[in-house]
Amino acid sequence: MNRFLSATALALLPIAGFADDTLRATGDLGLIVERATGSVLVIDRSERAAVGRVEDLGDMSHASMTYAPDERHAYVFGRDGGLTKIDMLTQEIKARTIQAGNSIGGAISDDGELVAVSNYTPGGVKVFDADTLELVADVPADGKTIGLADLPGRRFIWTVWDTGKVFLGDFSSPDPVIEIIGNAGLNPFDAVVTDDAHTYLIGLFGEKGVTAIDLWDDDPKPVKFLEDYGKVEDDMPVYKMPHLQGWAFTEGQFVLPAVGRHELLWVDRETLKEVGRTPTHGQPVFIIAQPASPYVWVNYATPLNDVVQVVDSRTHEVVKTLKPGKAILHMEFAPRGAEAWVSSRDDNKVIIYDTRTYQVKAEIEANAPSGIFFTARAHQPGL
Amino acid sequence: MNRFLSATALALLPIAGFADDTLRATGDLGLIVERATGSVLVIDRSERAAVGRVEDLGDMSHASMTYAPDERHAYVFGRDGGLTKIDMLTQEIKARTIQAGNSIGGAISDDGELVAVSNYTPGGVKVFDADTLELVADVPADGKTIGLADLPGRRFIWTVWDTGKVFLGDFSSPDPVIEIIGNAGLNPFDAVVTDDAHTYLIGLFGEKGVTAIDLWDDDPKPVKFLEDYGKVEDDMPVYKMPHLQGWAFTEGQFVLPAVGRHELLWVDRETLKEVGRTPTHGQPVFIIAQPASPYVWVNYATPLNDVVQVVDSRTHEVVKTLKPGKAILHMEFAPRGAEAWVSSRDDNKVIIYDTRTYQVKAEIEANAPSGIFFTARAHQPGL
Repeated sequence: MNRFLSATALALLPIAGFADDTLRATGDLGLIVERATGSVLVIDRSERAAVGRVEDLGDMSHASMTYAPDERHAYVFGRDGGLTKIDMLTQEIKARTIQAGNSIGGAISDDGELVAVSNYTPGGVKVFDADTLELVADVPADGKTIGLADLPGRRFIWTVWDTGKVFLGDFSSPDPVIEIIGNAGLNPFDAVVTDDAHTYLIGLFGEKGVTAIDLWDDDPKPVKFLEDYGKVEDDMPVYKMPHLQGWAFTEGQFVLPAVGRHELLWVDRETLKEVGRTPTHGQPVFIIAQPASPYVWVNYATPLNDVVQVVDSRTHEVVKTLKPGKAILHMEFAPRGAEAWVSSRDDNKVIIYDTRTYQVKAEIEANAPSGIFFTARAHQPGL
Repeated sequence: MNRFLSATALALLPIAGFADDTLRATGDLGLIVERATGSVLVIDRSERAAVGRVEDLGDMSHASMTYAPDERHAYVFGRDGGLTKIDMLTQEIKARTIQAGNSIGGAISDDGELVAVSNYTPGGVKVFDADTLELVADVPADGKTIGLADLPGRRFIWTVWDTGKVFLGDFSSPDPVIEIIGNAGLNPFDAVVTDDAHTYLIGLFGEKGVTAIDLWDDDPKPVKFLEDYGKVEDDMPVYKMPHLQGWAFTEGQFVLPAVGRHELLWVDRETLKEVGRTPTHGQPVFIIAQPASPYVWVNYATPLNDVVQVVDSRTHEVVKTLKPGKAILHMEFAPRGAEAWVSSRDDNKVIIYDTRTYQVKAEIEANAPSGIFFTARAHQPGL
């Protein structure tokens, strides 16, 4: 079943999946974004195989998703403003709405009852009933919203690119309470909440530095750090602004991709001071922590995007360089860390590594795969 | 459906659950141990309700369990040496073996293919095929084994009460490799692996102090710390040795229950030095970190076991004291932290708290409930 397409085929052949009445668990399922064909591949992590495909999802470039607490439904955020609810068991679209002209990701509330989407055109955040996808709240903004994330207590946080304003929305009562908690700086391009929901980190495009907000503070305020971080001068082109959801949190540190440089930056979580740098193969895009280990895995921007490197967070040294295939766009770990799944867009496949031996355990063919999302994300705050 | 028993009834009335062919996800299910009746209650976390019961599980005092990666099957470790595989979807026993005379917990390998059980009588560790429960390896020991946990790469770690020896078992090849990595000290009574699988912490009964082993080290060795920790003198009776799986890991600290005292100890994760103490209502039993928050929740040993306290890991101060019911034995959090489920053995119920407001959202009747185990544990190393 894990050889359902020839490597060159881009036609969407039907997959004999499990879309029947057989009882099946949802803890080891996942979706892989096929950006060129506007589809997602349904995978079974235990079988290391594709078991189905859901089509007609619109513009899936830069698509991301989040999962309901029961791991049955996925909420897929398309670039074209499409919000789609997919049933992982029947492999059907349960609901779909084109809720804006251009959107950039979303989040689910901690209780699983609300789904929020971050929009560029028109700017703002829309909040939907997770069951029906009916609009629950519409919060306009004076610009593009970025860095939307869930916080405990049915709250969401987001930032506006044009104004730098950071918003905290509390949707725990029928009348949402929206407050501005400060200004992040010039043109924030992305933001992320740490894995313990303690800190909101905001990357800036218009000025140097990173902004942190302590979300556990009674009166959270933006604090600038890494004053030298950010846009480089003309010495090196920036091929891709790094994803902040690719900042790994490990060994009491944040790991940040240097913008436009072949380098990782290591920052002490407590002091917000730089504690080390790692020279890398290319411009880092995603830096993902391998669970239950001291390692992070790094992929790179074009044209050096055929390599993945493994870096030790204790020594800050590269311990392994892998060449999985052409155009490596994303990596996702089995939740206990035993495997790394790596997508190779231009080789039309996903490669599964044993994280201990670095042996390839299996490959799954996919059409120009990008993001890989396992249902285990349902249980992680901020994902 | 969440009122299926009168509060005083101890008879096992049938529950109209979902044991049919309806498609159902497994991400929000769980089991609650009913120790007096040798059964487990199947619960649906989203519905906040009991949806079934599985009986004939033998001696369920001190019972614990672990879940398969797909969250479909639970492996229940009974005190009488019984190992039972339960199908969460059909609510049936899929396999059961009495594999020893007396056992004390178990673990599942990171790839979900092996289940290991820690035995008292006879001492040792037995490893089973997770699919069939056929015996795969039998590792005898010169005493009772405690503190069994999974490590990445199909490995398990455990310790022997009688000798203090710490064993690392590598089951990644057909011929397991078992090595002794050191001596923990006099009469280790329990041990736990930290949430990042970095450190193995071993509590000692026969001498003061705690032993730590850095599992990421190429040559891991036991290191003693908290030299004053452990058995108290005659000034206070120890009502219950604390569970080490109840040591919370938060804000760069370990939180330990003081043995025999009404106190929590806070230890810096990096330096292994004590950084604070918190006076508490009673002798702490479980200390559980509330996800995405600075808080830990603490329950207490008899006779002060009707109280749960919430402690802030930044200030080390008690911020809330709750009285959920009689004989509070365990607490489990919704994975993103929105709810705390608390078992009251002597009130025959489980109480569900909103962690933000401390309001009771629901109660579920259960027969003398103890441990609460959500399927989300499937995705956490060491659980």
